[in-house]
Amino acid sequence: MNDSSPDLPLAPFEITHTDGNARAGRLTLAHGVVETPIFMPVGTLGTVKGLTPDDLRGAHVQILLGNTYHLFLRPGLEVLAAHGGLHGMMGWSGPILTDSGGYQVFSLKDLRRITEEGVTFQNHIDGSKHLFTPEKVIQIQEVIGSDIMMAFDECPPLPCERDYMVRSMERTTRWAVRCLQARTRPECALFGIVQGGVDIELRRQHLAQLQSLPFDGFALGGLSVGEAKPRMYETVEAIAPELPAHRPRYLMGVGTPEDLLACVQRGVDMFDCVLPTRNGRNGQLFTSRGRLSIKQATYRLDLQPPDPECACATCARFTRAYLRHLYIADEMLAGQLITLHNVHYYLHLMQGMRDAIRAGRLDAFAQACRDGWRESPRGA
Amino acid sequence: MNDSSPDLPLAPFEITHTDGNARAGRLTLAHGVVETPIFMPVGTLGTVKGLTPDDLRGAHVQILLGNTYHLFLRPGLEVLAAHGGLHGMMGWSGPILTDSGGYQVFSLKDLRRITEEGVTFQNHIDGSKHLFTPEKVIQIQEVIGSDIMMAFDECPPLPCERDYMVRSMERTTRWAVRCLQARTRPECALFGIVQGGVDIELRRQHLAQLQSLPFDGFALGGLSVGEAKPRMYETVEAIAPELPAHRPRYLMGVGTPEDLLACVQRGVDMFDCVLPTRNGRNGQLFTSRGRLSIKQATYRLDLQPPDPECACATCARFTRAYLRHLYIADEMLAGQLITLHNVHYYLHLMQGMRDAIRAGRLDAFAQACRDGWRESPRGA
Repeated sequence: MNDSSPDLPLAPFEITHTDGNARAGRLTLAHGVVETPIFMPVGTLGTVKGLTPDDLRGAHVQILLGNTYHLFLRPGLEVLAAHGGLHGMMGWSGPILTDSGGYQVFSLKDLRRITEEGVTFQNHIDGSKHLFTPEKVIQIQEVIGSDIMMAFDECPPLPCERDYMVRSMERTTRWAVRCLQARTRPECALFGIVQGGVDIELRRQHLAQLQSLPFDGFALGGLSVGEAKPRMYETVEAIAPELPAHRPRYLMGVGTPEDLLACVQRGVDMFDCVLPTRNGRNGQLFTSRGRLSIKQATYRLDLQPPDPECACATCARFTRAYLRHLYIADEMLAGQLITLHNVHYYLHLMQGMRDAIRAGRLDAFAQACRDGWRESPRGA
Repeated sequence: MNDSSPDLPLAPFEITHTDGNARAGRLTLAHGVVETPIFMPVGTLGTVKGLTPDDLRGAHVQILLGNTYHLFLRPGLEVLAAHGGLHGMMGWSGPILTDSGGYQVFSLKDLRRITEEGVTFQNHIDGSKHLFTPEKVIQIQEVIGSDIMMAFDECPPLPCERDYMVRSMERTTRWAVRCLQARTRPECALFGIVQGGVDIELRRQHLAQLQSLPFDGFALGGLSVGEAKPRMYETVEAIAPELPAHRPRYLMGVGTPEDLLACVQRGVDMFDCVLPTRNGRNGQLFTSRGRLSIKQATYRLDLQPPDPECACATCARFTRAYLRHLYIADEMLAGQLITLHNVHYYLHLMQGMRDAIRAGRLDAFAQACRDGWRESPRGA
């Protein structure tokens, strides 16, 4: 199957350090180099909600995630193409990864029909019908101009019948080959997605189908979709080290700070999740002393920065009492400032992991993080 | 009555240039010098909605307005005092003016009772009862730490019975004297408010009562409350030039870019209004080519900046098509970016007026602005 894209060199990925299963590396993409392990904030509709591109740069964001399904519907390909792609439209000059839309389309349970060709669905905005095929999804991502495109996959909800999972995986593999064949822009890297739920045997089966394909990287999909956390960790622990060693490993849709640390220790290089942004808008801060719910009365007169150990623009300028006031008064600045902190916190945590891997002391770093998270933010 | 605050020097106000009735000057306040004529964005609850203090500085904001009534209720005096006042709480180091709360309290029509002592009211959040007196309102504003406090006044709705207006004005005058006597912080300047609706004779009566009092500046209140625009302009034209010449003149709650220009030409030095911020959140941009409603389909593929003549961070980075997409997708960044532009536009307009007054060419500047506003933004 290697003849599918014979002329496309893989995106350069250099692993500079390892520490147990963890790796620190550099992934070179069309819009810049990404240091791994890395977290990607979610910018579904061409904006990380509440943050400008300048804010993102200030929070040390290296690469963003955009959602193909949502961008295809709004603003649509014509508007994206007019701007020369998503980078130009949203004013973000760094790398962008887009998902394939598979996750969203398959979530439209009663509004979609799967065939070998692809998925017909009615969208959630105006109900109009569309067909997503592997070829179409690559075409959309090439219009978006993603630095990393994701192959079109089915992400079965868990729990899932074994039989269905096997058939779904095989179709996802056939779609993966079609995605590789559909590429026309060599500067847009393409990652494959390994499915198989929390059944390690099925994961290995699917990985065996995909690993020889010339993908620039490999993702674990279909996790963090409702399964128990220990099952997720077991699956990552078993499969992440078996993913092609010289390609980046991306765990989709994960997770909490604890998850990021645990899964970097298990060999994952890339993450995305809505938690720092969505929870930020809901008044929850991730800090070096655990989570802090800003609406609690205990913070009414608390003049400390949200996280005294944090150097972000929010912690440098504002008190917990002020953020609490903004949040309770339903001021949009609350969501902006807390999101900015959370994104900064996630990126700072990844920086800490990279530094620790380079120094061969990831376990000690992880222990220190976990000790901090167990303390109460109030006592900080 | 000049014995009320015998030891307080007036805030230094230097008029450096005049052009017809218009004046350009410098008002020195506790937190810095304000160049007049000036526009003050409204930061009701300790935030100009959607903008950080850094954003405000970047938009050349010199002085903000806070609302005493709202800040008294949320976050309340204890939280404000804990931060050493509003400047410390919101991270804004420049000057702040606060209204007296009179406008808000009197708007609570069925929930308030007026006596000579003050106004008893039930607040709009939890219905609890409070008494605002002239002394209380000064005390609150001193806790806020306003660079400019406003005297407690009644702002009668228009139309208003002449008899009631006369009695209300006389009470507002007695309250003005009590406000002056209640001051304890000499660094917090205090402005008096001239009422009288759109009856120029009543305005003159009230001005005669107030003009000998040692206020740092004089405001025209009770305008832009529903009266016809020509009546507002006539009133300002008649009264603004009669306000004490060597004190700043503040027209409260006004207005559109056209209003600012017309009223600077009539001798006003200071303005505040929610229009640039509120309309910004509703997708309306003020531009050098008139107003632009970003949701219109005509902007779907429009790659121009919102205002090609504007140097703000929004116009420097983003297209009309992108802002339209954000607005239609209900993304909070739409409100942030459009508000930032509008505030920048208002402040840039004031800068243009100051420069024109200094050069003795305000009429020509005004004509050029009005010519621009008559063009269509689409043709820009």
